[in-house]
Amino acid sequence: MPAPFPKAEYDDRLARTRRKMHEAGLDLLVVSAPDNMNYLSGYDAWSFYVPQCLLVSAGDQEPLWIGRGMDSVSARLTTYLADASILSYADDYVENPAKHPMEEVARIIKDRGWDRGQIGYEGDAYFFSAKWLQVLENWLPQATLVDAYLLVNWVRTVKSPVEIEVMRQAARIVEHTMWIAIDAVEVGRRQCDAAARISFAQIEGTAAFGGEAPANPPSILSGVNSATPHASWSDEPFLPDTATCLELSGCRHRYHSAMSRTVYLGDPPKKMLEVAQATGEGLEAALETVKPGVLCEGVDTAWKKTISRYGLEKPSRIGYSIGVNYPPNWADHTASLRSGDETVLEPNMTFHLMLGMWMDGWGFEMSETFRVTETGSESLTRFPRELFVKS
Amino acid sequence: MPAPFPKAEYDDRLARTRRKMHEAGLDLLVVSAPDNMNYLSGYDAWSFYVPQCLLVSAGDQEPLWIGRGMDSVSARLTTYLADASILSYADDYVENPAKHPMEEVARIIKDRGWDRGQIGYEGDAYFFSAKWLQVLENWLPQATLVDAYLLVNWVRTVKSPVEIEVMRQAARIVEHTMWIAIDAVEVGRRQCDAAARISFAQIEGTAAFGGEAPANPPSILSGVNSATPHASWSDEPFLPDTATCLELSGCRHRYHSAMSRTVYLGDPPKKMLEVAQATGEGLEAALETVKPGVLCEGVDTAWKKTISRYGLEKPSRIGYSIGVNYPPNWADHTASLRSGDETVLEPNMTFHLMLGMWMDGWGFEMSETFRVTETGSESLTRFPRELFVKS
Repeated sequence: MPAPFPKAEYDDRLARTRRKMHEAGLDLLVVSAPDNMNYLSGYDAWSFYVPQCLLVSAGDQEPLWIGRGMDSVSARLTTYLADASILSYADDYVENPAKHPMEEVARIIKDRGWDRGQIGYEGDAYFFSAKWLQVLENWLPQATLVDAYLLVNWVRTVKSPVEIEVMRQAARIVEHTMWIAIDAVEVGRRQCDAAARISFAQIEGTAAFGGEAPANPPSILSGVNSATPHASWSDEPFLPDTATCLELSGCRHRYHSAMSRTVYLGDPPKKMLEVAQATGEGLEAALETVKPGVLCEGVDTAWKKTISRYGLEKPSRIGYSIGVNYPPNWADHTASLRSGDETVLEPNMTFHLMLGMWMDGWGFEMSETFRVTETGSESLTRFPRELFVKS
Repeated sequence: MPAPFPKAEYDDRLARTRRKMHEAGLDLLVVSAPDNMNYLSGYDAWSFYVPQCLLVSAGDQEPLWIGRGMDSVSARLTTYLADASILSYADDYVENPAKHPMEEVARIIKDRGWDRGQIGYEGDAYFFSAKWLQVLENWLPQATLVDAYLLVNWVRTVKSPVEIEVMRQAARIVEHTMWIAIDAVEVGRRQCDAAARISFAQIEGTAAFGGEAPANPPSILSGVNSATPHASWSDEPFLPDTATCLELSGCRHRYHSAMSRTVYLGDPPKKMLEVAQATGEGLEAALETVKPGVLCEGVDTAWKKTISRYGLEKPSRIGYSIGVNYPPNWADHTASLRSGDETVLEPNMTFHLMLGMWMDGWGFEMSETFRVTETGSESLTRFPRELFVKS
């Protein structure tokens, strides 16, 4: 499938990336994070389990794509790049102790005469391993290698109108999916059978918008697992008198809108009803605080003030920037809604406001994906904000 | 869910890992690859998007688990480790430019007095970023840091009887799934709707064995996408007179058995029938070559000899070791079936024999997961070896 946005969108992204490169004094940027590669070129394939990157030079030429030979066809099918900008390495570089694909990347950098400048790399991005940097250092002795981790991620923080439109499509998918999910959680049904229905709904999408597999699998935390956020489902059945936390996303062109809700099978204990009440009020308070100019930490403060009236606290952050992402995670890794984060909110920033209450032996989740508007906030996901009780 | 194997299985894995650590002169090994953490401790959670690791010392104490606070509950639920062996870092270490979780790992290494020896790390493993190594180097100035990439992966290469049993369960899941998949590929149906059915089948599993989401999503390569192995599905419909390549896996306790087949909607062209014929014969020839003592490259030679009679060649490897794995990839990253790989086959090694023929504008796939037996090979996956034609 060709890149989902008009060429002008990618031109703008590239121009903003180059401005940040200029500020950082970079002559070249090695962009290897799959989300950033997609953002700048449209490239989309499940090929990020082998080394691949875009080379973005400070000049005005289009980026070079470098990857495994068999994946260069995907680069031709999904990017706007000219064939001459799509380069590849031979298959025997893959998982071969005798040589490494980053040697080929270094060779191309040398061939183009870029090996004497300041070269940025994404030093803490998924998949950019310690070895990759060692290879670049060894093969590019005249270059100055500079950690430019998150440079492109920050360019991604404010979404464009077409990105917001795609996230709205993802929101329709997750709303559809959440109804299926709440229906699927039933006493006696295997957790894996509910997971199957949920995954079906995520990928089927809606009649108008087909879905993709989100960057995180369906999170279905039932019984004891509801006390910890990243446990796997099992083939055990759902039990009566337990809570099940559901953290799900819709995914469209690799953009995510995420949402969480909690289902209780039976009569919920008083404490859970209290936590649900507090979380709902805290969610409203957080959203009411959001507007351009407010700091990220201010949203967390409003939340904390509200839940503290119930004697509750939450040590972990309450949200993060979200958008185009690949496994293992749908967060942008830039702004977090938490104490100490002084990022200033701007229109069209998008966040997953994720209120996971991890109690002793149980848990409760409620979350929305919202965008900052000119005057406040808008929930992209629209769904009843309540504890779903199935007796 | 508790660790799926008896404690003795983990004791044996740890003993074999420590023998390799001894050979490599390591006093401590930082095991951060999610598959290796699972292999040595049973740990299973979708938490590998933040730093986490096991510390395996040369002594006889049990490993230490270190991860994010909220994930320590998963460590208690899924591993055999004592509570005292489960350590965690505070949530404000997550995605915080001012501090890094590996600083906490270094602090723990120092606290235990392990910072003066040779410390191994997994330098080219997924998620072990350049930054992680820089932090360890800065915070452990008295240690000698040694790249021990794949040390544990090689320990994993020969599977135990209980691992083979779990891979058989995964094989039953992928066989079930492949029938659903072949049925789902229909002219006019959206690709995403077929993907939804396939994902449902993978996760539902069988009545006896619930499934998990495999390390790679369903690969559904239709029409032009059949010429490249890692393209994403879309919401375009399947078209008449096109091939669709299906590369799928069953997943059970994070163990994989993978299988590929190709569906043609219409009357296949003569060239595709020829490629299907050649691939089927090549697959048989490759499997007939397999037995203990044969080199990995010998399997590839048998394949090449067979398909060359049809005037065909395949530049990429024809398979790889497979077993317990996490996204983004279900390969073990050790032995490959390809020219130059002199790994000697041993009983209970397991491989995905993956015959992807990437032709000009189209493709054909057929694959099996097999184990090496005492005298030859056994396909774990059992399915008709043919091109599936739907007119």
